[in-house]
Amino acid sequence: MASPSSLTPPPVPPELHVTNRETLLNSLRRHLSESSRPLYGFVLLQGGEEQNRYDTDHTELFRQESYFAYLFGVREPGFYGAIDIATGKSVLFAPRLPAEYAVWLGEIKPLSYFKERYMVSMVHYTDEIATVLHDEYKGSGKPVLFILHGINTDSDLFSKPAEFQGIDKFDTDLTTLHPVLSECRVIKSDPELALIQFANDISSEAHVEVMRKIRVGMYEYQLESMFLHHTYMYGGCRHCSYTCICATGDNSAVLHYGHAAAPNDRILEDGDLALLDMGAEYNFYGSDITCSYPVNGKFTPDQALIYNAVLDAHNAVISTMKPGVSWLDMHKLAEKVILESLKRGRILVGNVDDMMVKRLGAVFMPHGLGHLLGIDTHDTGGYPKGTERSKEPGLKSLRTTRELQEGMGTKSALKASHERSNTDN
Amino acid sequence: MASPSSLTPPPVPPELHVTNRETLLNSLRRHLSESSRPLYGFVLLQGGEEQNRYDTDHTELFRQESYFAYLFGVREPGFYGAIDIATGKSVLFAPRLPAEYAVWLGEIKPLSYFKERYMVSMVHYTDEIATVLHDEYKGSGKPVLFILHGINTDSDLFSKPAEFQGIDKFDTDLTTLHPVLSECRVIKSDPELALIQFANDISSEAHVEVMRKIRVGMYEYQLESMFLHHTYMYGGCRHCSYTCICATGDNSAVLHYGHAAAPNDRILEDGDLALLDMGAEYNFYGSDITCSYPVNGKFTPDQALIYNAVLDAHNAVISTMKPGVSWLDMHKLAEKVILESLKRGRILVGNVDDMMVKRLGAVFMPHGLGHLLGIDTHDTGGYPKGTERSKEPGLKSLRTTRELQEGMGTKSALKASHERSNTDN
Repeated sequence: MASPSSLTPPPVPPELHVTNRETLLNSLRRHLSESSRPLYGFVLLQGGEEQNRYDTDHTELFRQESYFAYLFGVREPGFYGAIDIATGKSVLFAPRLPAEYAVWLGEIKPLSYFKERYMVSMVHYTDEIATVLHDEYKGSGKPVLFILHGINTDSDLFSKPAEFQGIDKFDTDLTTLHPVLSECRVIKSDPELALIQFANDISSEAHVEVMRKIRVGMYEYQLESMFLHHTYMYGGCRHCSYTCICATGDNSAVLHYGHAAAPNDRILEDGDLALLDMGAEYNFYGSDITCSYPVNGKFTPDQALIYNAVLDAHNAVISTMKPGVSWLDMHKLAEKVILESLKRGRILVGNVDDMMVKRLGAVFMPHGLGHLLGIDTHDTGGYPKGTERSKEPGLKSLRTTRELQEGMGTKSALKASHERSNTDN
Repeated sequence: MASPSSLTPPPVPPELHVTNRETLLNSLRRHLSESSRPLYGFVLLQGGEEQNRYDTDHTELFRQESYFAYLFGVREPGFYGAIDIATGKSVLFAPRLPAEYAVWLGEIKPLSYFKERYMVSMVHYTDEIATVLHDEYKGSGKPVLFILHGINTDSDLFSKPAEFQGIDKFDTDLTTLHPVLSECRVIKSDPELALIQFANDISSEAHVEVMRKIRVGMYEYQLESMFLHHTYMYGGCRHCSYTCICATGDNSAVLHYGHAAAPNDRILEDGDLALLDMGAEYNFYGSDITCSYPVNGKFTPDQALIYNAVLDAHNAVISTMKPGVSWLDMHKLAEKVILESLKRGRILVGNVDDMMVKRLGAVFMPHGLGHLLGIDTHDTGGYPKGTERSKEPGLKSLRTTRELQEGMGTKSALKASHERSNTDN
C-alpha cells in the first residue's frame, strides 16, 4: 500500500540546542556588560516534572517545560540545567533513579548517555548541584545564580523559579534572565525554522487528508482523529501544539472550540462550513494551521463571500509583511480588507475608514491577527518589557504588536470567515 | 469504503451517575447509623480544574477527577457537587463564566442545561455554595460537610479536600467519606459494566487492527497511532486509560514502557516479539488490554514456550476465578503455572514448590497479577482500611489481594512471557 505521506520525520540535530545556549550566553553577557556587572555566575533552570492526575498513579504524558526544552532539548523529566557564564560550559543534572526503575520504566542510562545526546560539557546528578556549581565557580564571593522568573504575557502566569537543596549557598538573581531568554526565543535559527517547517508540512498534509475524507454525517472528533493519526503515524508527532479545534456549523464561531466542555462532538450536516484549526508539534517545535471549507464541497454564495473576504485579507497581509513592518498595522490591514469585502457584499453599509475608527472590525475579528510561534504555540516575547497592550476592541487581543524581524516565527490567525458566516447563518 | 469497525459508541446513560449517588447514599447512611451518628449533612466534592502547562496558556485537555466523575459524570471543569444526606437531593455548582467565554470557548449554558444533562436536583453557581447548603440544611447546629480526603494506595497520594469561600461556616468531617466512597466504586453496576465492556470491545478491535497492519521496519509509535486512531475514530474515545505501551524486542521487558523517557521509538526488527499494552477510555470508564505476538507472524520455539507458559497461566486463572476466590491465590496460581512451564521447557530445574517458597516467580513476574479497573485504570479499593500489602517479592506489587466479588472490574496483567523471552534473548 502506498503511504499517504510524502514526508519523513527529519533527524533532530542536537547542535540546535547548543546554538540556543550560545545565543543566550551572548545576549546575557552583553546585557551584563552593559550594566557593568561581572561576567560570572550560572544560568540555572529546573526542567519539568512528570505529573500525576489528581491523587491517582495515572501519569500524564510528560512534555518538557519550554525554556528548558529550548536550552537543553531534554525529553526526560526531573532534570536541571546550568550554563557557566564565565566559561560557557553547560551542565545537566539528571535525577538519580532507583534500581526498580529498570524493571518498571526502562534502562537506567549512564550520565555519559545524556552528555552525548544533549551535547553538554558535563552531566551530574541533581543531588550534586550545589557542590558542582561551587567547584566550577571561578569568581570571588558567593556565586550568583540567574534563575528564571517572569510573567508570560499570554497566560499572565509566572514561570516557577528553580529550587534545589543548597540554593541558600548562592546569591540568586530573579530579574535578569527572563526578559533576556524570552527575547532569545523570538528569533529562530535555521535549524529551528526547519523543525517548524516540518511540523507545518506534516500538518498541512494531514489537513489535506482530512479534507479528502470529510463527509456529512461524521462527528467532528473524527476529523481530529484523522489529523492526529496522520501527523503521528507519518510525522512522528506525539504532541499537538494545542487541542484540536474541529468546529462545524455554529461552532465555527467559537475561537477555541474543541476543549473538554465543547469536545468536537457535533455531527456534520449538509451545508456546514468546517473550521479546522490543528497543528502538530515536532521535537518541541510547533505549527498552527487553520483551514476552512464547506463539508459538502460547495460554497454557498454567502459562505463564498466570507471565505473570499478572509482570503483577500490573508493575501494582503502575506504580500505586505516583511521585516520592519508592524504587526499591529498588519492586523489593521486584515481588518480593513475584511470590512471592504463585507461592504461590497452589502453586509455592511457606510464608510470603511469610519468603521476602522469605531473599531467595528473587532465584531468580526475579536482575536488578534496572529502571534509568535515556536516551542510554545503562543511563543514568548509578544510584549517585551516596556511595551503595552492596547485597550481597544480587537487590538487588545493581539498577542504581539511588534515590528517583524527576519527569523521570527509567526502565525497569522485569520478565522473571521467562519465566525462571520456562522454567526449569521 | 466499509468501516473497519463493527461497533458504534453507545449512548451514555445519565442515570448511571444517579445510581452511583444512590449507592453512596445507602453506604454512607448505613455507616453513620452503625456509629449512631445523625443522618444529616452534605457530601461535598470539588471537581477538577483545567491545568495550564507550566507558565504558558497551553491548556491540557481536561479530564474530570475520578470520584467526581463517578458521582456526577460532569465533563466540564470548575464544578462542585453536593449530596444532601437527609433528603438525597443532589446539587451541582457551576462556575460563573465571563461574557468573553462565549466568544473564545463556546456557549454559556444555562444552569438548567446542567440540571437536565447530569440529572441532579438543583444547580447553582460556585459562589453560592455556602448559602445554598445552609438554606437546604434541615438539621440543628452547624451543618457537617463530608469532604473527600484519603490516600490512594497505588500512588500514595492524597485526594485534595474541597475548598470554597465560606467553608468556615460548616463543620467538616475529613475521615468518613473516603473509605466509603472508594468502596462504592469497587462493585460496578450493570450500566458501568456496559461502558467498561464497550471500552474493551473497541480496544480489542483496535488491537486486532494493529496486529493486521504491523510490519518489520515500522516504528513502535506507529502501532500506538493506529490504536489511538481506531478507538477515537470508531469508538469516540478521546482518552486512553494510560499511556500506550508499544514495546518490541528488549523493550518488552519494561513493564511501563512508552512514557516520555522511553517513547515507543524503536524500529521493529525481524524476529521481535511485540508486547502491546493499550486501552481506551469511554465516558470515564477504562479498559486495559495487553497482547503479544511475533512481529513477523511466526513464533520461534523459545518465544512459543514463553507465550504458552503465559497462556496456560491465563487460562488457569480464568477458569478458577469466581466470587469468593482470593486474588492473592490467583497470583500464586499464575506464578506456579509459569514456573511449571519453564521447568518443562528446561529453563528452570528443581522442585516447583520449593521455587514457590523462595518466591522465584517474582523474577519472571515482578508485577502483580492484575488490579481493579474502572474510572481509574488502577481503580480504588485495592487495599481497604485495615488490610496490608505483602512485603514478599512479587506479592508486594499486587495492587489488591482481595477476595473476588460479583461486579468487580478487574484486569489480569499477565505479561511475563515477553519479559522472560526478551531478557533472555
